[in-house]
Amino acid sequence: MSMIRMGMVGGGQGAFIGAVHRMAANIDSQIELVCGAFSSTAEKSITSGKALMLPENRCYPDFQTMFEMESQLPEDKRMQFVAIVTPNHMHFPAAKAALEAGFHVLSDKPATLNLDEVKALKKIVEQTGLLYGLTHTYTGYPMVKEAQQLVANGEIGKVRKVIVEYIQGWLSEAQDADNKQADWRTDPARSGISGCMGDIGSHAANLVEYVTGKEITHVCAELTAFVEGRRLDDDGIVLLKMQDGIKGTLQASQIAAGEENNLTIRVYGEKGGLEWHQEEPNTLTVKYLDKPTQVFRTGGGSNSARAAGVTRTPMGHPEGYLEAFANIYVNFAKAVADFAQGKTIDPSEYDFPDVIEGVRGMALVESFVNSSNQDTKWYNLDQLLADA
Amino acid sequence: MSMIRMGMVGGGQGAFIGAVHRMAANIDSQIELVCGAFSSTAEKSITSGKALMLPENRCYPDFQTMFEMESQLPEDKRMQFVAIVTPNHMHFPAAKAALEAGFHVLSDKPATLNLDEVKALKKIVEQTGLLYGLTHTYTGYPMVKEAQQLVANGEIGKVRKVIVEYIQGWLSEAQDADNKQADWRTDPARSGISGCMGDIGSHAANLVEYVTGKEITHVCAELTAFVEGRRLDDDGIVLLKMQDGIKGTLQASQIAAGEENNLTIRVYGEKGGLEWHQEEPNTLTVKYLDKPTQVFRTGGGSNSARAAGVTRTPMGHPEGYLEAFANIYVNFAKAVADFAQGKTIDPSEYDFPDVIEGVRGMALVESFVNSSNQDTKWYNLDQLLADA
Amino acid sequence: MSMIRMGMVGGGQGAFIGAVHRMAANIDSQIELVCGAFSSTAEKSITSGKALMLPENRCYPDFQTMFEMESQLPEDKRMQFVAIVTPNHMHFPAAKAALEAGFHVLSDKPATLNLDEVKALKKIVEQTGLLYGLTHTYTGYPMVKEAQQLVANGEIGKVRKVIVEYIQGWLSEAQDADNKQADWRTDPARSGISGCMGDIGSHAANLVEYVTGKEITHVCAELTAFVEGRRLDDDGIVLLKMQDGIKGTLQASQIAAGEENNLTIRVYGEKGGLEWHQEEPNTLTVKYLDKPTQVFRTGGGSNSARAAGVTRTPMGHPEGYLEAFANIYVNFAKAVADFAQGKTIDPSEYDFPDVIEGVRGMALVESFVNSSNQDTKWYNLDQLLADA
Amino acid sequence: MSMIRMGMVGGGQGAFIGAVHRMAANIDSQIELVCGAFSSTAEKSITSGKALMLPENRCYPDFQTMFEMESQLPEDKRMQFVAIVTPNHMHFPAAKAALEAGFHVLSDKPATLNLDEVKALKKIVEQTGLLYGLTHTYTGYPMVKEAQQLVANGEIGKVRKVIVEYIQGWLSEAQDADNKQADWRTDPARSGISGCMGDIGSHAANLVEYVTGKEITHVCAELTAFVEGRRLDDDGIVLLKMQDGIKGTLQASQIAAGEENNLTIRVYGEKGGLEWHQEEPNTLTVKYLDKPTQVFRTGGGSNSARAAGVTRTPMGHPEGYLEAFANIYVNFAKAVADFAQGKTIDPSEYDFPDVIEGVRGMALVESFVNSSNQDTKWYNLDQLLADA
Repeated sequence: MSMIRMGMVGGGQGAFIGAVHRMAANIDSQIELVCGAFSSTAEKSITSGKALMLPENRCYPDFQTMFEMESQLPEDKRMQFVAIVTPNHMHFPAAKAALEAGFHVLSDKPATLNLDEVKALKKIVEQTGLLYGLTHTYTGYPMVKEAQQLVANGEIGKVRKVIVEYIQGWLSEAQDADNKQADWRTDPARSGISGCMGDIGSHAANLVEYVTGKEITHVCAELTAFVEGRRLDDDGIVLLKMQDGIKGTLQASQIAAGEENNLTIRVYGEKGGLEWHQEEPNTLTVKYLDKPTQVFRTGGGSNSARAAGVTRTPMGHPEGYLEAFANIYVNFAKAVADFAQGKTIDPSEYDFPDVIEGVRGMALVESFVNSSNQDTKWYNLDQLLADA
Repeated sequence: MSMIRMGMVGGGQGAFIGAVHRMAANIDSQIELVCGAFSSTAEKSITSGKALMLPENRCYPDFQTMFEMESQLPEDKRMQFVAIVTPNHMHFPAAKAALEAGFHVLSDKPATLNLDEVKALKKIVEQTGLLYGLTHTYTGYPMVKEAQQLVANGEIGKVRKVIVEYIQGWLSEAQDADNKQADWRTDPARSGISGCMGDIGSHAANLVEYVTGKEITHVCAELTAFVEGRRLDDDGIVLLKMQDGIKGTLQASQIAAGEENNLTIRVYGEKGGLEWHQEEPNTLTVKYLDKPTQVFRTGGGSNSARAAGVTRTPMGHPEGYLEAFANIYVNFAKAVADFAQGKTIDPSEYDFPDVIEGVRGMALVESFVNSSNQDTKWYNLDQLLADA
Repeated sequence: MSMIRMGMVGGGQGAFIGAVHRMAANIDSQIELVCGAFSSTAEKSITSGKALMLPENRCYPDFQTMFEMESQLPEDKRMQFVAIVTPNHMHFPAAKAALEAGFHVLSDKPATLNLDEVKALKKIVEQTGLLYGLTHTYTGYPMVKEAQQLVANGEIGKVRKVIVEYIQGWLSEAQDADNKQADWRTDPARSGISGCMGDIGSHAANLVEYVTGKEITHVCAELTAFVEGRRLDDDGIVLLKMQDGIKGTLQASQIAAGEENNLTIRVYGEKGGLEWHQEEPNTLTVKYLDKPTQVFRTGGGSNSARAAGVTRTPMGHPEGYLEAFANIYVNFAKAVADFAQGKTIDPSEYDFPDVIEGVRGMALVESFVNSSNQDTKWYNLDQLLADA
Repeated sequence: MSMIRMGMVGGGQGAFIGAVHRMAANIDSQIELVCGAFSSTAEKSITSGKALMLPENRCYPDFQTMFEMESQLPEDKRMQFVAIVTPNHMHFPAAKAALEAGFHVLSDKPATLNLDEVKALKKIVEQTGLLYGLTHTYTGYPMVKEAQQLVANGEIGKVRKVIVEYIQGWLSEAQDADNKQADWRTDPARSGISGCMGDIGSHAANLVEYVTGKEITHVCAELTAFVEGRRLDDDGIVLLKMQDGIKGTLQASQIAAGEENNLTIRVYGEKGGLEWHQEEPNTLTVKYLDKPTQVFRTGGGSNSARAAGVTRTPMGHPEGYLEAFANIYVNFAKAVADFAQGKTIDPSEYDFPDVIEGVRGMALVESFVNSSNQDTKWYNLDQLLADA
């Protein structure tokens, strides 16, 4: 057994999410960062790599060079997959180049800048036969996996109703130009056609589809830019129809002043309901029609194999956001290792989000925007997914 | 000073809400039940009155007789107001008769069976100059009043976004015919055009208008009867537009299996947000953009006069649903007492819901149903309120 | 059926607990206040009675007069029991006089000023054969009763360990002379030998004995008066031994700054543990060795008859402190009614605290003080209870 | 800048805490595991090292060999510090050997098997002038650091009262011989004179001294082995006196059935109180005498530099147990790096627990046992610390 070798695109000095990816990759001692093109400027890219204590010859000026040079290294030295952690508009070009150069890709979300790109990406993934993963972090939490398993096993009966929300307050005011995180997220050229719904509404949509195992089919959305002068939505409220007659609401906001990172899901079936809050992620509450509420906990003896398999510490030793993130990495790395052994990989079996979730995510964001712009109540997603 | 004399219509043996009204009226030793017509059948009405230890001559066979006979009693003996606690379809006839016989009315909600009736009722209230109160119980909680005051005083800044929900699970299954509570609530003839939205969605709407001080202007609703064979909606999800650019969601459900009586409101302004949960009603959480969250509590030293005025016990001695209900009674009784002294009464000053809230409630319920039946996204309430 | 007639000693204008008793007695329409001696000064007593809308001839100048005059009324008019709500030092004289005049007694706690008095009181109760109840309010909560039933039924196995605490902060500072509540509670002549432990530590002790069904046998206590100049303890910490090898801690404080009325009990047995918090009284959490935690709620379908019997509203409609208080009243009133029918009354069957709990309470308070004053670790309660 | 090189003693395959140490050391990419002697048997030690992907020549058969061989490596290759993660009885021999061979030590707690050993260890640390750290993990949480800073800055006034508890349920039953974790913890030869109090009571004591900045001076303890046949205590309850007149309770249990890892601290001062729960570690609640409770959160803008300095993710992205553990590592590694630069290191400035905490921990455990064995109420710690 040896460590899985990872390269990185983006995540240079001053970037937030790149550091998170690296911490997540580190925790379990199964993945080793071996190279990177950390910035859109060559100098900063190389400086960043050195600060991460990489050997100088594997700090590349740009991702094109990295993919080319790494391809020429011996198979047991070269990187095996690349983590893409740039702003949104670079996700597709970097992923495309990596796949075409023969490297697996683990991309930050959204998969691409728009729906057309992700449809193209899906074709490339299929053509290359390589692995593609997407860090929809929140499905990495053990208790989200437990929720998914409980629903799948009929614990709450046939699902009728969902309530999912992801509300933050950090964009309540017009941001300073020097807030790097806020800056690109509110710029259509780098972020895409949606701000809040693309950034976090997409997580909420992914979460509700993951937990219920059903797809959103119709949306009725109202997107708003509450802060004067903002070019993209900072709030979105949506009515949902899903497969099998499920209805519900989805909402996301970045102007819910005072909220931190409040992602919450509730799912109600014929026999009971469940509730999970990202800010207290080790608790999953299941309510029943006819008996006392039960509280499931990370590390609990009754947990499913899927949840238990991504739990590191005993009950009551809280696992957090970095561990959830690490769970995407660890499941993806296992697939990379098995791929290297010649196995055929079914991403859903390895329980990491892949390009299918990427396509759905981009279609959902586009549906939110289109619905918000129309006067008819319901917007049918079929029209977006016809050729995907 | 003497006690205020109350009569009651409805609330005979086996009824739920009548007993709640009586307990609420009792707590503060300011209101005395002196007579009643407790049932639609004369015999049961009289038996119920005797079981309540009323003198036999003030147990009436029907409300018409009661109003007539009470009118003939000396002024210092006869009832001063009547509490109406029948199923919905009897609210209007009883209120109309009472007002026309010269008695103030405190009615369970909804005010009437439909919008036309409540418009007529409003005219009668105006013509008689008598008092009319509506037991939208949940605005009786001290922490709801505190929320209203904090918003009014600008604590969270200009309001942008609301999230209000009232979810229960008790109608998750097709009910037995002998469940009296469930039976009439799902019968259009006795309940009105809506089930869930009329019964509890209307409370949610009232709560959000009370706390924000702003009116809902447009709705986009989807109502569903999830349980097979049910004639009225048991679930409703709604996008809202309110005055001053506020947007948000409102939802109510009686098929959220495992939920008890989960009425929750969140309001976000430019500077912060607040959150209140009916099931833990003595806590009001206020979150801020730029400083730690604060937890306001019933009985707290910093509370407004409006909240403190309806608090009976010191901090940490929890007040509950019956006390909230009693607060509607106590404020209404104070108005009745002052009216008797010849004062002019402004209901909003006495802080009890009146026929204005009654009209808005019926219009909102009608708007939810109409919106749910149309294909256009937004439904404008103006069309319903033109002549109110 | 007619209402139970109650008199009151103490609770005049400006008193806190008298009003609480009256609200508690009112809620269920089963008890009627018919007379009172509300103050230690005749004039104030009568004024207070009138303000409560009592007829003038039943507003008495003092309790001696009241008992004498009421005795002479026809049996179906005179009060049936007296509620004693004075400062502590008057509890015994008033209770003694009432019992000797033939009236049942429902007394605020503590039963008397000291152990000798309560032993004497116990003899009087036994000799007269009348009913004596003590308002240890907190055992009136439905979820406390549920806890008692679950322990009794073996749900958590043989009990090993208890943690009970009752912490408040309202006496953190030296109080003003004009704080009437604080004033008598810190005066040995009116309050007894202990401040905090007598006032609230005794509630904690009663609660843990009620829930476990076991008696405290040994204590190791440290009492402190943290506020300079205070004559009685404002904080007490205690190690406990109870029957059957149970050990644990009990603590009470009135200088836990920022705490409201935080009475909490946790009980651990061989198979699980349970936890209840007075400030959120409608929830009882039961944790298990080998399965998910369960949350029991007031009104829940699985609740015991003992809990369900004192529940007024459906699940999710919170009951509070006044309802818990009312449950003591309602159970006591039922015993009074049955006594009047000639039945023999076993207080434990009617589930209200009686003079046995009164004796134990005084002995426990004395044991805390004596233990705190000795250098030996354990203090055995037997020495106090030898002749009780 | 280069990574800090770490060796490890203990933590071979099947061990729990070794893996935790490695994950904690990994997260921040500042520490590299370069060698180890992972087991008390040579073969298992080497197998474990290989499984961790260490080069074979740095997988040592025992720690003596490791220290000797590593000493001979070039300074820029050899390990800089050793993490000791064996059962308790090996802590002292391994630490002594490491320090004497010139290596810094970061030891799992307790520092040694008994008080005599830790006094000897303290002398060795002083003589060698090397760094010694102790992984009292729980003080690594940002909100514990915030609590310490708030107390130090007078936010709650002069401290009067503490309540600290660490309760678990996992040893509620007699364990199987093949439960490796339970086995050595209940064996006096490997665990020391105390079970529960040594294992977790010591964490509680460390936490309360860290947060208040005051030392425990007297204890009154009752230790119990509830499970039949168990040789060491599985539960301990303690009254405390601390410097400056502080009093309080400390308790630990491993038979609190149903509890997970419930470490909780509450500290009350003259102006307010604070409360922290390890199972929800990102929240610190501060209650005040005269204003609403405030909720401090990991990542909050108002947090102290000490808390902010060990926070990795934005508010609402929960950090957990591994991150707290990592914070001990990261602070210790910073001291190692600065030491290598020739700086003089004051552990309290780098905010990691050192041998002083080690001595106090062993003295406290011994005081709990001695107090439990005596009939006098208070046990004075001075007698244990005379020569330390």
